[in-house]
Amino acid sequence: MKVSILTLFPEMFHGVFSSSILKQAQEKGVIQFNVVNFRDYSTDRHKRVDDYPYGGGGGMVLTPQPLFDAVDALKAEQSSASNEKPPRVILLCPQGEKYTQEKAEELAKEDHLMLICGHYEGYDERIREHIITDEISIGDYVLTGGEIGAMVISDSITRLQSGALGNEQSAVTDSHSTGLLEYPHYTRPAEFRNMKVPDILLSGHHERINTWRRQQSLKRTFERRPDMLEEIELSDKDADFIKFLK
Amino acid sequence: MKVSILTLFPEMFHGVFSSSILKQAQEKGVIQFNVVNFRDYSTDRHKRVDDYPYGGGGGMVLTPQPLFDAVDALKAEQSSASNEKPPRVILLCPQGEKYTQEKAEELAKEDHLMLICGHYEGYDERIREHIITDEISIGDYVLTGGEIGAMVISDSITRLQSGALGNEQSAVTDSHSTGLLEYPHYTRPAEFRNMKVPDILLSGHHERINTWRRQQSLKRTFERRPDMLEEIELSDKDADFIKFLK
Repeated sequence: MKVSILTLFPEMFHGVFSSSILKQAQEKGVIQFNVVNFRDYSTDRHKRVDDYPYGGGGGMVLTPQPLFDAVDALKAEQSSASNEKPPRVILLCPQGEKYTQEKAEELAKEDHLMLICGHYEGYDERIREHIITDEISIGDYVLTGGEIGAMVISDSITRLQSGALGNEQSAVTDSHSTGLLEYPHYTRPAEFRNMKVPDILLSGHHERINTWRRQQSLKRTFERRPDMLEEIELSDKDADFIKFLK
Repeated sequence: MKVSILTLFPEMFHGVFSSSILKQAQEKGVIQFNVVNFRDYSTDRHKRVDDYPYGGGGGMVLTPQPLFDAVDALKAEQSSASNEKPPRVILLCPQGEKYTQEKAEELAKEDHLMLICGHYEGYDERIREHIITDEISIGDYVLTGGEIGAMVISDSITRLQSGALGNEQSAVTDSHSTGLLEYPHYTRPAEFRNMKVPDILLSGHHERINTWRRQQSLKRTFERRPDMLEEIELSDKDADFIKFLK
């Protein structure tokens, strides 16, 4: 899988792409990231990429030319190379569809994603209408640019590529992938600053431990994210326990 | 304002903290970031920070000692230095409260935040219960660690510090801070690859331009995020326009 990131701040990605699982996945050839500064495609003499908005008002707006030309060039490279599916061209922006694990699973199946990161500027609407296939927002908060959102998408889809995670990493039961929040974890020491690990976990009684963990997961989800319980199918035993909590 | 970030991957932050607005805000003295590798606080001979979970199961769990000692040390540094408010100690995790612009505004008023980033490991529950004041999730998707979430919080609260943004940056009307999605922006050229800017924006008629923009904002919000319309107070004129859209 290939991910092209179009940004005016390519250096923002150095740390994240050269650490941990994203680094390992690239080394294993599971995924390939290509960070492109779209300023390089500006035909303006001063390599400008933004201009004042028509109709007045503050702020700057990204002009169409550099992004259209950058996307064209990346598409041309690809189509001459292979019979991949055409790329999904994703704009990170607050107006976009809310990003979820379901969306991550959908995007992880593509051959090629292009992630377009504006900064504090707005985008000329023609970019939105003509080169973008998806608009995505990672949450209801204001960020300076799309770069951190592009990191969110990159990380979440890399984890979903087969072979990206080692056993140690994938064995952890992820919240949002089981549909319930995680149960509490404990490790050594059994007592730390007078705080003890629950006896049940030291009992060696696996069936009782599994029941305790399932109930703790249900309890935490019930208390913190009752909306998540409505989205999954509960066994009779789980449903009885939820009734007990109420 | 001071933000301490406790992580096992400090290098992940290099790009983001040395670019753009986060860099400028630090140079202006508006905010100070302190990235701490909590592995440095491990008293284990091999500087280990995780261990197998009690009760069995896959995955590793962060042990309490390094994080307790790191947080203690950072608090001691602070209390000897000043009469700041005690720090908010925030765990980035999928079980946390959903991060929103409202939460960003609340956190931006603190003197000192500590952001704790686990990686693929779980956290020993005693960390959660005894040193954490807030648990935050940036969205319903699975990420490898808390680092990208810490970047989200860092960026969103930096923008809210007075003096952090230049005029050019702050003048853009942000979605999520006005309560409506943004209207479409256009800039030069007036025609690009046969795609034209709407005539109204070239008319010079400011009142009509403002009405058009307001209506475009309402329309886009109505189409994409009707939930946002329920959260704000609409003028009679706005309400009439929404009725017209229906």
